[in-house]
Amino acid sequence: MNAHDKFAQLLANAREPFPASRKTYAAGELHPALRVPMREVSLSNGERVTLYDTSGPYTDPAVDIDVRRGLPAPRAEWIEARGDTEPYAGRQLHPRDDGMRADAQDERMAFLRLQAQGLSRSPRRARAGGNVTQMHYARRGIVTPEMEYVALRENGRREWMAEYLADAERAARVRGNPMGASFPERITPEFVRDEVARGRAVIPANINHPELEPMAIGRNFLVKVNANIGNSAVTSGIEEEVEKLVWAIRWGADTVMDLSTGRNIHTTRDWILRNAPVPIGTVPIYQALEKVGGVAEDLTWEIFRDTLVEQAEQGVDYFTIHAGVRLPFIPLTARRRTGIVSRGGSILAKWCIAHHRENFLYTHFEEICEIMKAYDVTFSLGDGLRPGSGADANDEAQFAELRTLGELTRLAWKHDVQTIIEGPGHVPMHMIQANMEEQLKHCHEAPFYTLGPLTIDVAPGYDHIASAIGAAMIGWFGTAMLCYVTPKEHLGLPDRDYVKQGLVAYKIAAHAADVAKGHPGARARDEAISRARFEFRWQDQFDLSLDPDTARLFHDETLPADGAKVAHFCSMCGPRFCSMKISQDVRDFAAAQEGMARKSAEFREAGGEIYIPVRKG
Amino acid sequence: MNAHDKFAQLLANAREPFPASRKTYAAGELHPALRVPMREVSLSNGERVTLYDTSGPYTDPAVDIDVRRGLPAPRAEWIEARGDTEPYAGRQLHPRDDGMRADAQDERMAFLRLQAQGLSRSPRRARAGGNVTQMHYARRGIVTPEMEYVALRENGRREWMAEYLADAERAARVRGNPMGASFPERITPEFVRDEVARGRAVIPANINHPELEPMAIGRNFLVKVNANIGNSAVTSGIEEEVEKLVWAIRWGADTVMDLSTGRNIHTTRDWILRNAPVPIGTVPIYQALEKVGGVAEDLTWEIFRDTLVEQAEQGVDYFTIHAGVRLPFIPLTARRRTGIVSRGGSILAKWCIAHHRENFLYTHFEEICEIMKAYDVTFSLGDGLRPGSGADANDEAQFAELRTLGELTRLAWKHDVQTIIEGPGHVPMHMIQANMEEQLKHCHEAPFYTLGPLTIDVAPGYDHIASAIGAAMIGWFGTAMLCYVTPKEHLGLPDRDYVKQGLVAYKIAAHAADVAKGHPGARARDEAISRARFEFRWQDQFDLSLDPDTARLFHDETLPADGAKVAHFCSMCGPRFCSMKISQDVRDFAAAQEGMARKSAEFREAGGEIYIPVRKG
Repeated sequence: MNAHDKFAQLLANAREPFPASRKTYAAGELHPALRVPMREVSLSNGERVTLYDTSGPYTDPAVDIDVRRGLPAPRAEWIEARGDTEPYAGRQLHPRDDGMRADAQDERMAFLRLQAQGLSRSPRRARAGGNVTQMHYARRGIVTPEMEYVALRENGRREWMAEYLADAERAARVRGNPMGASFPERITPEFVRDEVARGRAVIPANINHPELEPMAIGRNFLVKVNANIGNSAVTSGIEEEVEKLVWAIRWGADTVMDLSTGRNIHTTRDWILRNAPVPIGTVPIYQALEKVGGVAEDLTWEIFRDTLVEQAEQGVDYFTIHAGVRLPFIPLTARRRTGIVSRGGSILAKWCIAHHRENFLYTHFEEICEIMKAYDVTFSLGDGLRPGSGADANDEAQFAELRTLGELTRLAWKHDVQTIIEGPGHVPMHMIQANMEEQLKHCHEAPFYTLGPLTIDVAPGYDHIASAIGAAMIGWFGTAMLCYVTPKEHLGLPDRDYVKQGLVAYKIAAHAADVAKGHPGARARDEAISRARFEFRWQDQFDLSLDPDTARLFHDETLPADGAKVAHFCSMCGPRFCSMKISQDVRDFAAAQEGMARKSAEFREAGGEIYIPVRKG
Repeated sequence: MNAHDKFAQLLANAREPFPASRKTYAAGELHPALRVPMREVSLSNGERVTLYDTSGPYTDPAVDIDVRRGLPAPRAEWIEARGDTEPYAGRQLHPRDDGMRADAQDERMAFLRLQAQGLSRSPRRARAGGNVTQMHYARRGIVTPEMEYVALRENGRREWMAEYLADAERAARVRGNPMGASFPERITPEFVRDEVARGRAVIPANINHPELEPMAIGRNFLVKVNANIGNSAVTSGIEEEVEKLVWAIRWGADTVMDLSTGRNIHTTRDWILRNAPVPIGTVPIYQALEKVGGVAEDLTWEIFRDTLVEQAEQGVDYFTIHAGVRLPFIPLTARRRTGIVSRGGSILAKWCIAHHRENFLYTHFEEICEIMKAYDVTFSLGDGLRPGSGADANDEAQFAELRTLGELTRLAWKHDVQTIIEGPGHVPMHMIQANMEEQLKHCHEAPFYTLGPLTIDVAPGYDHIASAIGAAMIGWFGTAMLCYVTPKEHLGLPDRDYVKQGLVAYKIAAHAADVAKGHPGARARDEAISRARFEFRWQDQFDLSLDPDTARLFHDETLPADGAKVAHFCSMCGPRFCSMKISQDVRDFAAAQEGMARKSAEFREAGGEIYIPVRKG
């Protein structure tokens, strides 16, 4: 099977709707044309459960998909309708955008680029002097379609939850501890606008990414998960990256970062963006470095600036910008156990050292803001000095940079540019809360976006688990988005299986955080699956789980027969006794007890004087 | 390949020493004959790192192993030397001990039982009226060989750690938060004695389990991990269980519970115990139930008592006893989302309901204590009413039982019987600390032993991750032992691969807890692996990781060449730039900066008046 056929087949797998699920769409009130996707699961008892859905048009069999043409672009008319942007010719492409030498000949790449031409669109930008960020609109009191979309999406359908959340005793007992978050009972478009205006949430939504299904990142919304994909000089091709994208959103990626560092960066990005219903983030310094042949010292503001425009025109929704790696902080890393471990951070450190000058991203920060606001690219202020081991956690290098990111956030907000803050990394459990508090304090509640953190350093091969622990905790404490870590962290680039492993681990962490924070409705899915479990509705248990395929597979390894799906036992205890079954007897007993108590109360109330103890069995 | 050959091959795999590792033994001071096993890892830079080792004699190539004869029995002479026990004929075996009908004919079982005869030993018990528990000795001021063994084991070799823990600034910054635990700088035998006397730690060590390598469970020791194995009526055979045992301890199980529920229970247990260097726990009510044909109502105190003696004679180190499932608590579970989910709990609930009488384990509790102290079996007071969903967490049924377990702990301690307390289950993150505090308060710091807890309910297939999050947190908060959860939880019985997955997830949780608590030395392994990572010593990074095989495998999937093991790059960034590499330049820069600062200070001190700024590059 050649690469293209393999790709087609992988994509077909990733397009299959989830079991017992169909795509439904909610319409807006302010913007009736909105079609906000949700996944509806039909249970065997007739109930319908609606779940947040990141998988995009791929899981809707009614949508015709051709990756060479890209996804439908529902946002195009919202953007046009605002009348504050204009199409233009765009920057001239250059072979080195793909990391090619001028004389490089590569037939396969030529073919891919040719195919990608079906993807290219004329870029738009704000009219001269304009500002087209969601934050800018929000601050002027405008509720955009993107904001209403987000509100509908965050709420989901609440009808089905009512029964599960109705028990007052239970609801009071397990009510979350928001740790400073503040959720309204129902997310309104106005609430979204307010959070975006205040900078406490962002909606990454480049005007050149009309295929986007908007989503919000903020501590008063569901905790989100980012998946990194991207080829490197050593491995991976374009189709594989597109397929990873589709696969990642199937398993719950709310945003995807394209961290490609090898050749073909520009073309890969075209393919990814035109086929991405989720926000795409990049680290532009990676491509800028490719353009100067990998020599950090040769980087210039001009090359970097050109790269920002190039990627903004393509539609990248957020840029990691390591503007906090300031010259005076670099020596603070010298005595660390693991120095500087961020690629972007180390590139800039190298540049600063070589020139003995302040980081050009810091000195040109407001010029970057000007680009960001012309396209609505969101800042993801990079933590280039994040700790690469528990030993370096919460040290002065890390916190000096974090305070600088706080300063820069103020600057970005001055320009109404949306901003999130990147965080570590490696942090032992007992230091996670302090890290979160420092971020909230110095970065003014701009959304925190952390990589894990990994709670220990000794688990290569299992760092998705070592970090899911830290991610769940920091998500509870206030982090808005968790950057996933795969089992291959520290060891190699993940392929699709590892991407899935990493994502499921992070959906667990994010959901655990939502439940702990008390996000309205987060617990309902747990209630539904628990009841299915208690009532031996195996099929419903699978269908409601984060990964229905694996749940069913694991069950069937032991009890493959179809009859076992409705059996009132499982392979753990076998048919002879089963705790769940016995529990049903308990209910009968309790009901009888209650009945007896009522009878005897009636008897006493009626003036009876003799209490007759009743014996059962 | 037949079952026996397959077994032999699996066992051979599990006997292979870890890469770059050899078994070393520490000798005692009070008891010079002690040989406390440790794993020594030789690094490529000449360093030697010593790690806690649960794998038993299996990973020592010098030990000749024959599972049909069982392991060497180093404790036999310690026990005999105490002079307070005597061998006796023991209880008469009965076919129903293996769950057989009197007329059952099963050739293979007959063969296995015949082979198991090579395993049978004459049981010992305390001389009449005697008490042979470690707690009893501890309270009389006796430091047993078991206690010194534990002290040596918990300390490990500290020499190698010195360099890693020497940096005062770092040590102060990342010092753990013990959350009420209190570790001495060095664990002494006297400290162990004191903790056991106070009931804050246990050393499960039945006098009929002389093969044991003693270990401690207590909040002031390393957090331990238990693995459950056991056949059920549906699946699994004896060899498979022994192989799972050996496999489980290889991957870090500190204790193993044999939860077999099907036929052949007695014989399986003989095989497991005689080949187990770790404490073995059981839930005797499972076997008692088999003896009455699976009909809970037919259980009697006499049958249960007989089962306790049977298993105590075999050498079981701790018994889960669900004495807290009291009749009045049962109706409290009726309105739960998932009722009673503990098998033991539901069996007893069924019995209580059927007879409308108080739980016979509760009413006969002191009689059970008499048996426990004649063999030194440790109580693991079962949480039969643990929540089976987040919805039921920390409810009145759970806490009523927990308070009862506290009462029973006092009773057990009156008899100097060692006691640990079992805990949940399913608990959302924000409710974990309250659960731990309730346990500490009502159970007088008797060691807590929790199953997870699972932080969410929607992750079947990945519950090792959903629960590792809760386990790490509750371990930090004070839980002494974590019962692992495998990916097959809720779905089926785990085979060896899932056993390993569950164990590694739980070693991560336990280690994260040790680091967070600030257990002396816990962090040193992280420091060693981080330095190896920073210095591109790939091989050392693999060898120091929790699962060297997987770490290497994942690395080699992308870069299989041997040269890549010493390459100063990896597949994530490729050879052209690498953050770790650049960091080396930073050190040179900082050193130069420091040098300049020193020079200029010298210049000023020498009376110089002109400060000449020096420019690099």
